[in-house]
Amino acid sequence: MTGPDTQTLADRVAAGERRALARAITLVESNRLDHRASATALLDALPDRQALRIGLSGTPGVGKSTFIESFGQSLTGQGMRIAVLAVDPSSARSGGSILGDKTRMERLSRDPNAFIRPSPAQTQLGGVARRTREVIRLCEAAGYDAVMIETVGVGQSETMVADMTDLFVLLLAPAGGDELQGVKRGIMEIADLILVNKADGDLKPAAARTCADYAGALRLLRKRPQDPDGFPKALTVSALTGEGMDTAWADMQALTDWRREHGHWDRRRRDQARHWFEEEVRQGLLARLTGDAEAKARMQALGEAVARGETAPTAAAEQMLATLR
Amino acid sequence: MTGPDTQTLADRVAAGERRALARAITLVESNRLDHRASATALLDALPDRQALRIGLSGTPGVGKSTFIESFGQSLTGQGMRIAVLAVDPSSARSGGSILGDKTRMERLSRDPNAFIRPSPAQTQLGGVARRTREVIRLCEAAGYDAVMIETVGVGQSETMVADMTDLFVLLLAPAGGDELQGVKRGIMEIADLILVNKADGDLKPAAARTCADYAGALRLLRKRPQDPDGFPKALTVSALTGEGMDTAWADMQALTDWRREHGHWDRRRRDQARHWFEEEVRQGLLARLTGDAEAKARMQALGEAVARGETAPTAAAEQMLATLR
Repeated sequence: MTGPDTQTLADRVAAGERRALARAITLVESNRLDHRASATALLDALPDRQALRIGLSGTPGVGKSTFIESFGQSLTGQGMRIAVLAVDPSSARSGGSILGDKTRMERLSRDPNAFIRPSPAQTQLGGVARRTREVIRLCEAAGYDAVMIETVGVGQSETMVADMTDLFVLLLAPAGGDELQGVKRGIMEIADLILVNKADGDLKPAAARTCADYAGALRLLRKRPQDPDGFPKALTVSALTGEGMDTAWADMQALTDWRREHGHWDRRRRDQARHWFEEEVRQGLLARLTGDAEAKARMQALGEAVARGETAPTAAAEQMLATLR
Repeated sequence: MTGPDTQTLADRVAAGERRALARAITLVESNRLDHRASATALLDALPDRQALRIGLSGTPGVGKSTFIESFGQSLTGQGMRIAVLAVDPSSARSGGSILGDKTRMERLSRDPNAFIRPSPAQTQLGGVARRTREVIRLCEAAGYDAVMIETVGVGQSETMVADMTDLFVLLLAPAGGDELQGVKRGIMEIADLILVNKADGDLKPAAARTCADYAGALRLLRKRPQDPDGFPKALTVSALTGEGMDTAWADMQALTDWRREHGHWDRRRRDQARHWFEEEVRQGLLARLTGDAEAKARMQALGEAVARGETAPTAAAEQMLATLR
């Protein structure tokens, strides 16, 4: 893509054209070297805009998709434009979730004020992070008010998503009291809001109890400087009836406003930009092993010697690194 | 550590001395540069021995610790020596599980033929992988017959553990039929054995049903070349009563024997050695960003420019990479 084309695409993304945004995302997700150069140029040509970036996590079965549908529609109902991105590094082998993202959020995907992007299959967490950061930046430039980044399960991906969002929401299902141990303390520590879903029908009392359990657990955590009184907070919601969505959104706004006023928002964004830079350097450095034909051939030859048992993995690595000095 | 000391430690590890093994593990887990050099020397000085490497995964609540206790004791009861390692990249922020590994496996930790090593706190999955591979190698050199590598939850860590083990076991709890979707297809695809735990008391019928569900699901997967007929397999076990432990072990042995006879064991070990080499190169390359004082200072300065908003993360990364050519 030449310069003028990049500028045209940037202008169309900035004007909020959905198809241009989709095309821009495909471009930043591409692994082709010429696409990468265009993607960098595109990112530079876009206007600086900020959306509220909301990270959302929850293990399979808690109702993440229905929650995003319900919560998303409550936001678009207030005239907001929202984008939903999925991050799923665990799908490296299977190439995606069993159910596609758009199928999972049928109503929201038809909403003109909502933009849903399924997770691309990626083999490395570093690659997922890079693309996700860039896609968030594209959605912000396209004028979306909120960008939700959904991640699945217990693991490294939560930390990654928390490192690129303003707010982190943990979605849970009603459960017995002893299930509290199932949530790793590390995730409790990055959550700004814990939402206990399925607070409807027969499960309503169980949801209230679970919510009280987590509220109690949150009070045991050390107070973080970026939190006003009462945060992190646990609430009950129902993706089915929509109950609690307004309260959840009001709490997100209250927390965000407080953080903006007290300098925490800017500080976090600065730290995240710095972290992004460091990651870009790391990924760029690693790309030299595969981008350079000579290095690639040497990796290949040494790798075969290791496979034949002629050289130990650590010793072969030292040889390779010596040639890269 | 000087040369003779490394050899002494290697000899003591090879002689099966527990304290020497613990010291060697502490050495390979260290981030100090001089320790790293000693660790590499130590790994080179050790004898080549092979243990059966068993990866074990299961979300919190399925009874992983009690299973490892029960299964581990059934192996040591047959005169085998076993090592248990925990891999938990999600503990990056919290610095470990809520309950320590030795507390979780109280009886096994007192067994003279069992060696349990808690997971060290690590910030990067790459770092966790490197250390774990080296610790496995130490345990093999120390003459353990089996090394179990336990990992938690749904995510990237399963793939990582599968990439350094001979067998991958997925532990599940009895559940309703619709919970089948909760297990990502990617994990089903790397499992060699699915064990449905808690097949005792009131849960026995539910465990049998869950086992049948998974057996059915496994039959839907494409047959892999490294599997004899009937594998991957789903079985019920009870960590509480010990029922099913012998059958599970017999199946692991049958699978292993078949793979050895048909060349799959060697092929997999070769592929893993190659992968280890590639990872070592990647980690070594990244270490240049922090090991070299000049590069470190440049990263620092550019990172601050990014944090101040003077340079975009991607543009700053390009500048940094240009100086590393």
